Amino acid sequence: MARITLLTDFGTPDGYLGAMKGVLATQAPSAVLDDVTHAIPPGDIRKASLVVGRYWKRFPPGTVHLVVVDPGVGTPRRGLALTADDRLLVGPDNGVFSSVFAKADTWWCYSLASGTGLLPEPTSDTFHGRDWFAPAAALLATGTPPAELGDPVSDPVRIIFDEPRREGSWVIGSVVEKDRFGNLATDLPAELVGEVGEVLVAGTRVPFLRTYGDATTGQLIALVDSDGRVEVAVRDGSAATRLGLGVGGEVRVRTILEG
Amino acid sequence: MARITLLTDFGTPDGYLGAMKGVLATQAPSAVLDDVTHAIPPGDIRKASLVVGRYWKRFPPGTVHLVVVDPGVGTPRRGLALTADDRLLVGPDNGVFSSVFAKADTWWCYSLASGTGLLPEPTSDTFHGRDWFAPAAALLATGTPPAELGDPVSDPVRIIFDEPRREGSWVIGSVVEKDRFGNLATDLPAELVGEVGEVLVAGTRVPFLRTYGDATTGQLIALVDSDGRVEVAVRDGSAATRLGLGVGGEVRVRTILEG
Amino acid sequence: MARITLLTDFGTPDGYLGAMKGVLATQAPSAVLDDVTHAIPPGDIRKASLVVGRYWKRFPPGTVHLVVVDPGVGTPRRGLALTADDRLLVGPDNGVFSSVFAKADTWWCYSLASGTGLLPEPTSDTFHGRDWFAPAAALLATGTPPAELGDPVSDPVRIIFDEPRREGSWVIGSVVEKDRFGNLATDLPAELVGEVGEVLVAGTRVPFLRTYGDATTGQLIALVDSDGRVEVAVRDGSAATRLGLGVGGEVRVRTILEG
Repeated sequence: MARITLLTDFGTPDGYLGAMKGVLATQAPSAVLDDVTHAIPPGDIRKASLVVGRYWKRFPPGTVHLVVVDPGVGTPRRGLALTADDRLLVGPDNGVFSSVFAKADTWWCYSLASGTGLLPEPTSDTFHGRDWFAPAAALLATGTPPAELGDPVSDPVRIIFDEPRREGSWVIGSVVEKDRFGNLATDLPAELVGEVGEVLVAGTRVPFLRTYGDATTGQLIALVDSDGRVEVAVRDGSAATRLGLGVGGEVRVRTILEG
Repeated sequence: MARITLLTDFGTPDGYLGAMKGVLATQAPSAVLDDVTHAIPPGDIRKASLVVGRYWKRFPPGTVHLVVVDPGVGTPRRGLALTADDRLLVGPDNGVFSSVFAKADTWWCYSLASGTGLLPEPTSDTFHGRDWFAPAAALLATGTPPAELGDPVSDPVRIIFDEPRREGSWVIGSVVEKDRFGNLATDLPAELVGEVGEVLVAGTRVPFLRTYGDATTGQLIALVDSDGRVEVAVRDGSAATRLGLGVGGEVRVRTILEG
Repeated sequence: MARITLLTDFGTPDGYLGAMKGVLATQAPSAVLDDVTHAIPPGDIRKASLVVGRYWKRFPPGTVHLVVVDPGVGTPRRGLALTADDRLLVGPDNGVFSSVFAKADTWWCYSLASGTGLLPEPTSDTFHGRDWFAPAAALLATGTPPAELGDPVSDPVRIIFDEPRREGSWVIGSVVEKDRFGNLATDLPAELVGEVGEVLVAGTRVPFLRTYGDATTGQLIALVDSDGRVEVAVRDGSAATRLGLGVGGEVRVRTILEG
């Protein structure tokens, strides 16, 4: 059973998603369509790339991941078909696959041809999700190798994320994501934090616990999140609201080795 | 593989959608269920009909589209089963299929029987999506022809949309839809607009470009949308907010022929 | 075709749902995944249990229902695998299955083992949906009996809901749920209400009608909802907003027998 997952910033209520699913169902009739999300903030390529990094490799080999956050639709920006660690991905060449390039053991990337060979000329200048990326995803889901969709690309667009830096016994990172619960994910890898490590967020010392339930209701804590990074949270509440902190906010960790 | 698509105004968090999917899964066990949207504004038949028009024919022949925006649930309003250009549709007879009737080459329409023959008497007066339309959709998905579900209907409810009108060299249309991005879709067909056509929205001259990416950030533009109509947009922003304009707002186009 | 339904409080935009679906797709590759909702308010176990009660038995025997509203993730709270009236359910032992225990003719319940036998040790302390419950759901969907996942449990956590009480000719209940439309569901069973029964909400007499469409636009009414309980609604509007009433608000019904 072929699977195509879908991530967009379309929302659902306007029917753009419906149109895209219709193309997929027509051109890859035996594929199952699995929604990941359609609620990426409009045009937020950075968020899309972080979210793609969270699921692409959890699906089985052969899965096709269709990713359409495409503020540059209709401009000369390229479209990409990728194979990465045996998963397949399709979407615009604007950085949405940055996490894939960073984490894949091996990847090959191809620039989608248009109006030649297998892929049609998009019939609109404003909806390549429906007219170009969905047909490409359907071709992959029905067995066409990505290399047949276009020429190899060695320089896909990649978002460069800031890296944590050292300052004496401190490692200084930043908030990279705020989730639905108001938890703040950081770019600090959990390995940095020793058992008695200390976390400082917006000038506040935050105890380091194992999980939310070990805190008291309303307590501000740090913990290791499910991606293996330092996260700041409030039990049964929102750390983002409590701290007035969003993406880019500074988070400091004193490491046990130098502390 | 039979496919049933779902469009409702239920939202998801109350479990009404879950109950309806359960009925479909029980009565059409081999069908795949594809969500289109459950975020139609409550009772907004007009919006539902525009959205249905965007996807119903993109799906392959044989697809069953279940459409439940049903403010008249439990009243004598009819339920319909349709076949239109080889797609099948089920829902209330309140206008939600207006776009289908307008665009289909051929359609036949039947009034769902109730409590006789194949369809059960609904067990509630307030949830025909679960008790009446879902069983009808399951019957269609498992091969029952729509004509076996009830008597032919030649006068289904149809929403009459305003048409653009001519005034000298101008064509005067209106906003028919605001999407998630704040883009304003109009009823002006793209063929009206020549290469040097001029667009006037709420008294403002708006340049006509090919796609969003050809504008500067924040620029107010007009373009041809993915349905082939004139759309007003702001690059990386909301035209609806910028102009304070919503559904029904006037949009004027000066055509090249008479201009 | 195996089916796994999904109910969470994750929202979709952060990719946690995507990660969980990836695990399911990998470990139960032939299962179809049906979203019920991901918009349960964060940590709202009570709401989750009411919603689960609305759909679990509508799906066919053999369906696996994965339910992840899990504010106690990582604490010693148990994980459960259930069989109830031939449906299968997986999730935390925190009350989310209360409606199932209340409504099932027969159920058996097992405490998920961890790190022994079939189930892995969760790789995170904060995301058991992905690391523990999804693998358990995949095992059930691929034919493993729940009893093989852990030891029997006879005392799962159950939410005790208030029951309506009698006071002379009145039955006094309360609002248990507010839905997307602003309708207020109560714990008053419809059988209590005779044909001329009288409903009093927040001091206001409310006429008892058969369905929304029998009211005039904006009228405040009571009716029997699709679960067979008394509901308070406003036609084309929100009873919750009109009355300023939410969960726990009092609703009184004068029964015909004693009235």
